[in-house]
Amino acid sequence: MHHASEILFTLFVVFVAAQLGGEIAQRLKLPGVVGEIAAGCAIGPSLLGWITPEQIAVGTPLDVLAEIGVVLLLFSVGLETRLEDLKKVGKAAFLVGVLGVLVPFGMGSLWAHGSGFSWDKSLFVAAAFVATSAGITARVLQELGVLQRTESKVILGAAVIDDILAMLLLGVVVSLQSGGGFDPLHLLLVLAGAIGFIAVIGLGGARVMRWNSGWLDKPRNAHSPLVIVLALCLGLAYVSTLFGLAAIIGAFLAGMIASETRQQHTLEKQTQPLLALLTPFFFVVTGSKIDLQQLASADALLALAAVTAIAIVSKLIGGFLGALSLGRRGATIVGFGMVPRGEVGVVIASLGLAAGVFSDRVYAIIVAMSLLTAMVTPPVLAWLLRRAGPAEASAPRG
Amino acid sequence: MHHASEILFTLFVVFVAAQLGGEIAQRLKLPGVVGEIAAGCAIGPSLLGWITPEQIAVGTPLDVLAEIGVVLLLFSVGLETRLEDLKKVGKAAFLVGVLGVLVPFGMGSLWAHGSGFSWDKSLFVAAAFVATSAGITARVLQELGVLQRTESKVILGAAVIDDILAMLLLGVVVSLQSGGGFDPLHLLLVLAGAIGFIAVIGLGGARVMRWNSGWLDKPRNAHSPLVIVLALCLGLAYVSTLFGLAAIIGAFLAGMIASETRQQHTLEKQTQPLLALLTPFFFVVTGSKIDLQQLASADALLALAAVTAIAIVSKLIGGFLGALSLGRRGATIVGFGMVPRGEVGVVIASLGLAAGVFSDRVYAIIVAMSLLTAMVTPPVLAWLLRRAGPAEASAPRG
Repeated sequence: MHHASEILFTLFVVFVAAQLGGEIAQRLKLPGVVGEIAAGCAIGPSLLGWITPEQIAVGTPLDVLAEIGVVLLLFSVGLETRLEDLKKVGKAAFLVGVLGVLVPFGMGSLWAHGSGFSWDKSLFVAAAFVATSAGITARVLQELGVLQRTESKVILGAAVIDDILAMLLLGVVVSLQSGGGFDPLHLLLVLAGAIGFIAVIGLGGARVMRWNSGWLDKPRNAHSPLVIVLALCLGLAYVSTLFGLAAIIGAFLAGMIASETRQQHTLEKQTQPLLALLTPFFFVVTGSKIDLQQLASADALLALAAVTAIAIVSKLIGGFLGALSLGRRGATIVGFGMVPRGEVGVVIASLGLAAGVFSDRVYAIIVAMSLLTAMVTPPVLAWLLRRAGPAEASAPRG
Repeated sequence: MHHASEILFTLFVVFVAAQLGGEIAQRLKLPGVVGEIAAGCAIGPSLLGWITPEQIAVGTPLDVLAEIGVVLLLFSVGLETRLEDLKKVGKAAFLVGVLGVLVPFGMGSLWAHGSGFSWDKSLFVAAAFVATSAGITARVLQELGVLQRTESKVILGAAVIDDILAMLLLGVVVSLQSGGGFDPLHLLLVLAGAIGFIAVIGLGGARVMRWNSGWLDKPRNAHSPLVIVLALCLGLAYVSTLFGLAAIIGAFLAGMIASETRQQHTLEKQTQPLLALLTPFFFVVTGSKIDLQQLASADALLALAAVTAIAIVSKLIGGFLGALSLGRRGATIVGFGMVPRGEVGVVIASLGLAAGVFSDRVYAIIVAMSLLTAMVTPPVLAWLLRRAGPAEASAPRG
């Protein structure tokens, strides 16, 4: 009768650990998300073992809750983002996205080849250096209440472009690795599909909502607009995976579309409890994937330090150069904002492990790098943003 | 990179089906929950097959989301329930709980024995007639906004007692069936544990909150009270399973404790979006468990009709007799409010199937009965409550 017992215990532990970690981090003047990730690492398989590796495998309830959590997070970030504002920073965001992919990919493949990988394997390793995880940065920006800053908009716009390019790059290296050869026509079609999806949904959806969202104004009950946009969020998150993009891109677009409606403010308020319940699962699960055992040697730690340094510096350079039009301070903020790799690096590392490209140790190092960048960035970003002060913030919307 | 695709599609389909079903039901002047259950049946394995049996098995993401959904639902019902109000109806609730278990158990075992089951197996079958699923009725009462009525409080109080007795009864029949013999001392301990848990948490928790919840008044951020009570909800849901009770009992107690704080009104508002996102999963998953194929014969349908009639009539008699102090109309409302068996009957049927007591067909019939009672009740209850009018409602709280 009570099969629910075990999973309820896990849910309780994950949720409470996230709150405690977040609280401790905030008392240490760190962003709460750092504490949540650290809490995940603490209760995860490598330390306390309250979460087992089986519980966070792909498709498990915790994994799905984490996915829903990050989808809702990016949805809520989209809710605070207007298409108009993104358009204004379009050029900078594009440059940041492109350079933020090319520089880490270049430096990553040089490092990998220098460490003894063949060129085709090096490109695979380098792919794990590429994709920024928008979730971590978005959460920091939201925690600090600076989503309306120009730098935030550049970061969010760049994250979309970054995801498109990372997806293409992954397609290339996987096809090179599988020996299937390189099919430029196929890649071009994939690229066109992804860009087409984003353009049609982003531009078209926002336009439709701006001109014709009156039907949302007289809801049958106070929650039907929320329910409609949540359905849109899940639907677009799904569809964006069909175009090879991350689910969070679709969720972000859904939020951006919903931000054009007159219910935008109500929706923001109603989304907050959803984030409070569900995003902790994402960050705790992310943290619990750090395998400390594999890193318990001087060699491994050295390699990890090198990989992490390359990952941070390369992304920082790419982002900084791309955002130079915002001035040095703004460009530094954008550069750091692009640094977290988070779960995307973890997923690429898993692919590499499954394809036999990586050893267990390289896998652990790349996973640890992805998560270290996710843990290092928030405090730095928070510090930079606090130092930059409110002066550069664009005017908040009504 | 996009493992999330399949599950996102399922989440989208379930969520949208629930909304469409709910909308259609409301246009037909039926409670929305009927439409959500019907939608689950439609997209489930026996009709469209958009949800497979594997996807709703115990411990799958959909099953866990459904569990979280019903836990949050009972939490929110608890938030609208004050201990004081429950105490006022204590005697009636106790009688309804006891008679609502004894009458169905008696009639169920007579029917089962008459249909050819041995006595020990008949008691097992009868156990599936017993447990009321508070989730369905709670949702109807909430949809109609009548949680403050005396009848609603009697139903909720009786549901707690019902769950204790059903748990004990299940313990007895399972031990009889497994040949382990009957251990009255053990059962007494189990009973004492369950009652002790509810008394300590319900009475003690409410008292602590009433006298000393000032620490919740100056939260670090607007969502910390919500986060604290959500942790309490998950924690008590878990602990109540340790005492052999349903998770929703703990969640209900957590809500009742939280209703004693000054944040009660804010918490109610913040819980609404959580319900909007998560309860549809519970009702759709419940509906998707109906296996229409097993019932596709005149014999099976006749048996189903008989079983369902006994289940409804016996519970109605028990509840009606127990609540006679509310007058005939009130007693009828309470009686019907106790009718839904929902997922509890499904779980008992699964136990019976696993223990070899039931054939596939008996299993399908009992599952269908559980869900039929869940589908039949809401419209009847809504009709009775609308006819009774607002006159008997107790004064709403500030």
